[in-house]
Amino acid sequence: MEAEATPVRDLLGLEGVGSPIDDTLNARIWSSERIHLVVNGMDSRFGIDSIGTIPAALTTFAAVKSTKPGLVISAGTCGGFVRNGGHIGEVIIADRCVFHDHRIALPGFSEYGFGEFPLADMSEVASSLGYRLGTVTTGDSLDAPVVDLKRMDSVSAAAKDMEAAAVAWVSSELNIPFTALKVITDLVDGEEATETEFLANLQYASERLAEAIFAVVTKLHEPND
Amino acid sequence: MEAEATPVRDLLGLEGVGSPIDDTLNARIWSSERIHLVVNGMDSRFGIDSIGTIPAALTTFAAVKSTKPGLVISAGTCGGFVRNGGHIGEVIIADRCVFHDHRIALPGFSEYGFGEFPLADMSEVASSLGYRLGTVTTGDSLDAPVVDLKRMDSVSAAAKDMEAAAVAWVSSELNIPFTALKVITDLVDGEEATETEFLANLQYASERLAEAIFAVVTKLHEPND
Repeated sequence: MEAEATPVRDLLGLEGVGSPIDDTLNARIWSSERIHLVVNGMDSRFGIDSIGTIPAALTTFAAVKSTKPGLVISAGTCGGFVRNGGHIGEVIIADRCVFHDHRIALPGFSEYGFGEFPLADMSEVASSLGYRLGTVTTGDSLDAPVVDLKRMDSVSAAAKDMEAAAVAWVSSELNIPFTALKVITDLVDGEEATETEFLANLQYASERLAEAIFAVVTKLHEPND
Repeated sequence: MEAEATPVRDLLGLEGVGSPIDDTLNARIWSSERIHLVVNGMDSRFGIDSIGTIPAALTTFAAVKSTKPGLVISAGTCGGFVRNGGHIGEVIIADRCVFHDHRIALPGFSEYGFGEFPLADMSEVASSLGYRLGTVTTGDSLDAPVVDLKRMDSVSAAAKDMEAAAVAWVSSELNIPFTALKVITDLVDGEEATETEFLANLQYASERLAEAIFAVVTKLHEPND
């Protein structure tokens, strides 16, 4: 979402309105020496941020082909879990990435639906920055009905989002290392309604996200010992 | 799925193993004077057909850019509904296309999640061929939990599939007319388990699908009166 991307661009010194990454998509890209920042842009019909797995997959596809990056980071806000020790503003880096709303009980297809995508090993980065490693689980709904919660519980989800596994799907197909960096805006198993809590904390969490992206990118560019 | 595409290719006289539509995707294309037939291909990690919305969106994106078609048809098998008069082997053409598993209760985002995609008017084609017009509703799961069924009921769903709305999403962004042509393999509100019924009827329904695609393509190429 634009609200998540603005503080990130400000902190990274990425100015202006960006460039299209493809002549048919609304996705936009800002580039510096160290990073390409890409947003899905606005939906043509509804005039709101293009959220969810489909625009995330298309944007990743076009952006990876255009920039050939060394690492793809799905960065954004997420739901967290009180029962997993999560709190508003906490930074999570993925050590597991799955879908919680792709259930396909055909022989051979259950695992495909679940995803279990390959991930870059970010354990040293997370440890040195004090960020928690955890499971990032993706679905196309903001809510969490019982059928989805069962999946989230089965992987001890630390972060529930709407894009990461789609970005991971494309990164895996295109053989680019992938990770997800998420900051908690709302607590899936907390007492407040998700939409209220999400909107109340979006600005705060997006500022934490900007700091975390800046810290991770700086860390990844440090010379090895 | 390859099982759905084989009878279609046979009836349309599309021979050989097809061509890649992109150097990074497993999707393949067969072309004749009247039609480009495209399949998502196999998943690189799991070795099964790439089903669901993400490969459907990526394949559509790459195929539309490559072929610039006059009409995109999301063709395949689907679940039907006894309570809506559906039966195994019945052909449905979309007069409405939505998602049943994208619930986003944020201001302005509910409608975006629902989709309600623009459709080509196929009423004359459907009427002349004796096919039923109805709502095609898409989600990334084979099953139908209560939370999804409520959405399907709210649109009097005639066909439940796993790709159409994603293909519609991309077609809409790329300004190409879109329709969906689906043949029922299993009854969502029937007595048999979906996976059993789907596998039992996949071959039969795919042969009906081949006949229907052949009939629709022939009809669309008839000279106007």
